[in-house]
Amino acid sequence: MLRTHTCGALRIEDKNKNVTLSGWVQRVRDKGGMMWIDLRDRYGITQLMFEEGKSSDELLAKARKIGREFVLQVEGEVVERFSKNDKITTGDIEVFVKKLSILNAAKTPPFTIEDDTDGGEELRMQYRYLDLRRSVVREKLQLRHKLMQATRRYMDQQDFLEVETPVLIKSTPEGARDFVVPSRVHEGEFYALPQSPQTFKQLLMVSGFDKYFQIVKCFRDEDLRADRQPEFTQIDCEMSFVEQEDILNTFEGLVKYLFKEVKGIEISDFERMTYDHAMKYYGSDKPDLRFGMPFVELNELAKGKDFNVFDQAELVVAINAPGCSEYTRKQLDALTEYVKRPQIGAKGLVYVKCNLDGSFKSSVDKFYNQDDLKTWADAADAKPGDLLLVLSGDTDHTRKCMSELRLKMGNDLELRDRNTFKPLWVLDFPLLEWDEDSQRFHAMHHPFTSPKPEDLNLIDTDPGKIRANAYDMVINGVEIGGGSIRIHNRDLQEKMFKALGFTPEEAKKQFGFLLDAFEYGAPPHGGVAFGFDRLCAMFGGSDSIRDYIAFPKNNAGRDVMIDSPATISEDQLKELHLSIKS
Amino acid sequence: MLRTHTCGALRIEDKNKNVTLSGWVQRVRDKGGMMWIDLRDRYGITQLMFEEGKSSDELLAKARKIGREFVLQVEGEVVERFSKNDKITTGDIEVFVKKLSILNAAKTPPFTIEDDTDGGEELRMQYRYLDLRRSVVREKLQLRHKLMQATRRYMDQQDFLEVETPVLIKSTPEGARDFVVPSRVHEGEFYALPQSPQTFKQLLMVSGFDKYFQIVKCFRDEDLRADRQPEFTQIDCEMSFVEQEDILNTFEGLVKYLFKEVKGIEISDFERMTYDHAMKYYGSDKPDLRFGMPFVELNELAKGKDFNVFDQAELVVAINAPGCSEYTRKQLDALTEYVKRPQIGAKGLVYVKCNLDGSFKSSVDKFYNQDDLKTWADAADAKPGDLLLVLSGDTDHTRKCMSELRLKMGNDLELRDRNTFKPLWVLDFPLLEWDEDSQRFHAMHHPFTSPKPEDLNLIDTDPGKIRANAYDMVINGVEIGGGSIRIHNRDLQEKMFKALGFTPEEAKKQFGFLLDAFEYGAPPHGGVAFGFDRLCAMFGGSDSIRDYIAFPKNNAGRDVMIDSPATISEDQLKELHLSIKS
Repeated sequence: MLRTHTCGALRIEDKNKNVTLSGWVQRVRDKGGMMWIDLRDRYGITQLMFEEGKSSDELLAKARKIGREFVLQVEGEVVERFSKNDKITTGDIEVFVKKLSILNAAKTPPFTIEDDTDGGEELRMQYRYLDLRRSVVREKLQLRHKLMQATRRYMDQQDFLEVETPVLIKSTPEGARDFVVPSRVHEGEFYALPQSPQTFKQLLMVSGFDKYFQIVKCFRDEDLRADRQPEFTQIDCEMSFVEQEDILNTFEGLVKYLFKEVKGIEISDFERMTYDHAMKYYGSDKPDLRFGMPFVELNELAKGKDFNVFDQAELVVAINAPGCSEYTRKQLDALTEYVKRPQIGAKGLVYVKCNLDGSFKSSVDKFYNQDDLKTWADAADAKPGDLLLVLSGDTDHTRKCMSELRLKMGNDLELRDRNTFKPLWVLDFPLLEWDEDSQRFHAMHHPFTSPKPEDLNLIDTDPGKIRANAYDMVINGVEIGGGSIRIHNRDLQEKMFKALGFTPEEAKKQFGFLLDAFEYGAPPHGGVAFGFDRLCAMFGGSDSIRDYIAFPKNNAGRDVMIDSPATISEDQLKELHLSIKS
Repeated sequence: MLRTHTCGALRIEDKNKNVTLSGWVQRVRDKGGMMWIDLRDRYGITQLMFEEGKSSDELLAKARKIGREFVLQVEGEVVERFSKNDKITTGDIEVFVKKLSILNAAKTPPFTIEDDTDGGEELRMQYRYLDLRRSVVREKLQLRHKLMQATRRYMDQQDFLEVETPVLIKSTPEGARDFVVPSRVHEGEFYALPQSPQTFKQLLMVSGFDKYFQIVKCFRDEDLRADRQPEFTQIDCEMSFVEQEDILNTFEGLVKYLFKEVKGIEISDFERMTYDHAMKYYGSDKPDLRFGMPFVELNELAKGKDFNVFDQAELVVAINAPGCSEYTRKQLDALTEYVKRPQIGAKGLVYVKCNLDGSFKSSVDKFYNQDDLKTWADAADAKPGDLLLVLSGDTDHTRKCMSELRLKMGNDLELRDRNTFKPLWVLDFPLLEWDEDSQRFHAMHHPFTSPKPEDLNLIDTDPGKIRANAYDMVINGVEIGGGSIRIHNRDLQEKMFKALGFTPEEAKKQFGFLLDAFEYGAPPHGGVAFGFDRLCAMFGGSDSIRDYIAFPKNNAGRDVMIDSPATISEDQLKELHLSIKS
């Protein structure tokens, strides 16, 4: 190779060795007849040294032509540094350069290649290959690499087989969000890119593969939000002859293993709560359990005291913000403004200060006396010095608002530490959810999720109440993965399609192969899929998945570096039997 | 889980244990008051036993309803078998069943689920999930799993980072073979699926990733041959600050590691030969070195003896088939017919028998006397008992024909043992090849391959003679992988695009991002890509890659199981701003 050592390898023990290094110029300093160059590669930084009198004039002249990000190859001798740098692993030494080759010159980059860069996001996306040169960015992808390798190690040890499922598949009836791929050979026909390998992994179970996994790209052509990408990566898993408990244990094991291997952290056993419990006490199916502040329902205590707002509300609910009784008017107004923002949409906020002297001060003192407020405080386990925050209205909406307020209080009180990890399984999700737009039920997870047998009798009377054998893994309020025990019986699967509004013909056309497969000896099975990009971000302590993707697309689904999507030629369109239609 | 043990787990040491097993019914035997069921899963087969008198009537009645491929769960006691079966690992025991649950019934499969099945290929493709149930098929995918995991282990140990590159990229000008993906958001624009992650891995080198790999799906919409798939998997790798030698050593190391880990075989060091040598002596850039029979050029010996066919030929070339001097007329005619088949296209075949008595008998005795023929035999190192086979004509075509004949003789003489592995690097490929159809040069590997510096002066005078820093890995006549040292300099890359007929505008439009990247400090770099499906087939001793793909497409690029590609709805087309045009 064009080096004997990397730029992170040399130590004081290497003193007097003749070495060859290659890398990028991070920094050049030239003063008082001395010249230093910091040479950088993936593994570290090594200081190069030149000295007037000792180094030849020719060498010095060449070195003085060098700018930032030039690619160099140098030969020289390892010498002990006069002033050591204990911030870098090579800080005890430097290399006295004897020979210098400029392997490639570099124009001045459009932003500085430093941990703190001066480049804006669009510019860094356009020159992503330069942004990736920054250590802080590259380290995120190194973390991703480690998580991938450790995931595979664990799954392999647990006898899972990695099987690649096809990328060119078939569009589904709910496929408005499918990316499609026109066929050149089969005129007027299209492949689709998978939103997940769901049906294929179920077929692998029918095939007796027993335990399957794959780290796999999936695709969804949805209107992008800040933190969505049209292509994303899943850890996709499926097991046969299992019950829910087996899956929870297996994948709790995976995540514990990843924390141990990649971060050196032993995380606690996973809490478990039902969906209903999570909604009632945290207003969210992905509660952040790094802090408490569960919801306290005050309907019985707060109604019937002539406060119209509460009397007419379906739900009156409080959280207790510990130690906040001395919030100022301004702070309380800011909280009220926060919950009234259009994204949240509460009508207003009621507070009750639990003063240190045992008295109460609330924004509804007109309607509630000290005894009334004491019953609220007791219900919420509030102590003197605490602050109750109360919202009211329709149950679902009020819970949603209160969930946001709870998270904001968690942030304000610095209870959401990035280095604390509180994992949780949320269980017993509803099977179906009502969609107002299409006026029909949708599958909450997907149409292959099995209902709890004891709820099956509700299918004709109250389908929205049927609970599913479905579960989500949540860490620190982020949904990391989810899955279910699947249907493995043709009749039940057909009933499910019917409940979702499929005609028998549609069900057969789209999923006939799966329905057929269920008739040839399908085992009970279930699985889980993890959002790998999000898992990486969570491990990295970041909210943005984009940082953990080597070449991400922007919010409009565009790769601004390669300028894609782009037009194609008329010839290509013709070959594909297509024309553009505005 | 719905089992305490797998169907491959129980041994004589487990005698008297109460166990629960789940699996598929492989076989049912019912005679003389005894009943046996072979229960199968991925891990093995365990014999279940019922006995009239000992088993309850109810249990026996239930057992007698069971058919092949039913899914069962049984509880019972491990007992020692009366007649042991040393062909299976559980052959010392059987399970005396006490409780039986039919987890799922099964219709009679459309073909038998046995190693030797009665199902034709189309039927097995349609019911691929049942074909995958056959052990011989599943084992191929288990081999694939092992190769994937071992590849990652080696690459990780060697400090390579696995980085996922995008699947939704941009169509290239030579993109007639690109699959494209219409954008819903960006009207009239398309993504393309990558034929390889080539430019992205080069950008990762510019980013300083130093060593990259990925096991990645790639896509090519070409007219399919028997052994091509529209989507295929590559082991894709790239390294910085390397010369060709470093890459050859690293990946020779990978393949040796895979043989050791997966097959327990220590393979020999790789031979190396130049492309020119391979073409001259084997007529192929992927010679099978499990056997000799190199080409012997006879031009000087065979011309000028009034045999018109040879006198007019550009090349007269022989191989020596050892021990074949007693081939019959019929055998020789068959060889002649073989080389004259349209797929090969030789005009005829000349033979020279080197008789055991030292004399020669040839099909051209009219033109060549014994002394003449002896010079041929000496040139080919032929001994009494050997057979020379001679072809003539245009050099390229004749070499191609002779290569086919050589491989056929290798087969006929059983010199191509599936358990012998002869690896080889073919070096110094031409940079460019002339394309008659388009009347211009194409890149033999791809446009990013660097020329050998000493040949650069030929670019204006004789570009076809420029050799590239390009190499292929060949094992047993199969190209397993290939790669090159890349261009890392903008000027040279632009010259290369020009030589390939790109206008500067086209080059900029398509690869501007790469040309730009080369100006910001691009290191010398190179890499390799392996055809992973083919590697799996080679390890499995098979010629067909399709067997090593879980859900392959047929020769028309169609997935007959899910019936894809398929039409999509008018609504979908409208959303994509497309219409079908015949």
